[in-house]
Amino acid sequence: MELFSYFRSSASYRVRIALALKGLDYDYRAVQIAKNEQFDEPYTAVSASRLVPLLRDGNALLSQSLAIIEYLDETHPLPPLLPADALGRARVRALALDMACEVHPLNNLRVLRYLVQSLKVSEDDKNRWYRHWVETGLETVERQLALRPSTYCHGESPTLADCVLVPQVFNAQRFECRTEHLPNLMRVHEACMRLDAFYKTRPEACPDAF
Amino acid sequence: MELFSYFRSSASYRVRIALALKGLDYDYRAVQIAKNEQFDEPYTAVSASRLVPLLRDGNALLSQSLAIIEYLDETHPLPPLLPADALGRARVRALALDMACEVHPLNNLRVLRYLVQSLKVSEDDKNRWYRHWVETGLETVERQLALRPSTYCHGESPTLADCVLVPQVFNAQRFECRTEHLPNLMRVHEACMRLDAFYKTRPEACPDAF
Repeated sequence: MELFSYFRSSASYRVRIALALKGLDYDYRAVQIAKNEQFDEPYTAVSASRLVPLLRDGNALLSQSLAIIEYLDETHPLPPLLPADALGRARVRALALDMACEVHPLNNLRVLRYLVQSLKVSEDDKNRWYRHWVETGLETVERQLALRPSTYCHGESPTLADCVLVPQVFNAQRFECRTEHLPNLMRVHEACMRLDAFYKTRPEACPDAF
Repeated sequence: MELFSYFRSSASYRVRIALALKGLDYDYRAVQIAKNEQFDEPYTAVSASRLVPLLRDGNALLSQSLAIIEYLDETHPLPPLLPADALGRARVRALALDMACEVHPLNNLRVLRYLVQSLKVSEDDKNRWYRHWVETGLETVERQLALRPSTYCHGESPTLADCVLVPQVFNAQRFECRTEHLPNLMRVHEACMRLDAFYKTRPEACPDAF
């Protein structure tokens, strides 16, 4: 398998974690998003969306981090990244989507660029925007984790939700967002970071980190 | 089952379509997002995220539209809303996420409010922002549909991806976005709207429509 990734892309980080949890080997293909390499050949020949991550598995090209992780879980079932029961799976997917839909899309590089370049938003207001969505979005996750505390987001082994949580906390810390109102979430984050799969795939450990 | 919904919420519309495709009955519970009812009792007692839709199935409370639809598909398998093969499922999920993550979150009511109220963005710039993300986001979907055209997003029966596509086109038309660069996508939209499940659940047909 080949993973097209950018070290700082949190969506790429999600898939790196899932591949590591599954113990799957892959070739790392760096796409420099900061240099707009996603809009040019050769990347546009494989990516219809011009986004990372992208996974190549044989002849198949897979996009969207959550879809890739579900695919990996279906094709390499052990260890499972989703619970065995339908309600548990729904809870894990909802937690993942609470971050992947309600937080991350608002704080993408292309969105921040649009705010500054097209809407002429100041640097301060841009940073306030960033922190607002991270802090309020992660509060939603915190409320749900507090209702049913466990070592990881759901139960005693990492799931899809943890693959999304850890990269989101990485972003939160990078932009100096408040996290003291998120005790359960930060406890889960710490538990994950003690696992090799989360630690060795972190942005600064990637081959393209600078 | 009970569905907490707002007629204009496109995430709610996705679930209304899925329930209709499955032929499942439910009680419609209106949550007036325009009046901020999601932030008050009684809704906060059932919703940790203060978002719609929310599905109550027995004692279980389920949030996040895509997680709800996957749950419905697992608990009521016929007709299936995901293909039988892992690569097909990955493609359908990626198409759904290309809209649910890359388009819809940027154009939520709360995001538009933040642009206007906190960032003092003009009405014109707000509408330009809206159209920018819809038009560029749906282009991504168009490119993928063009690679493998079929009656619906994926194959000859509606899937999760169509449950997301139709509400997104509803929003695009409401905000007068360009769609002439999206021939495959609009053809799929028309095919869906010929089905009762998509038509009878449209926003203006909801009990809370005004």
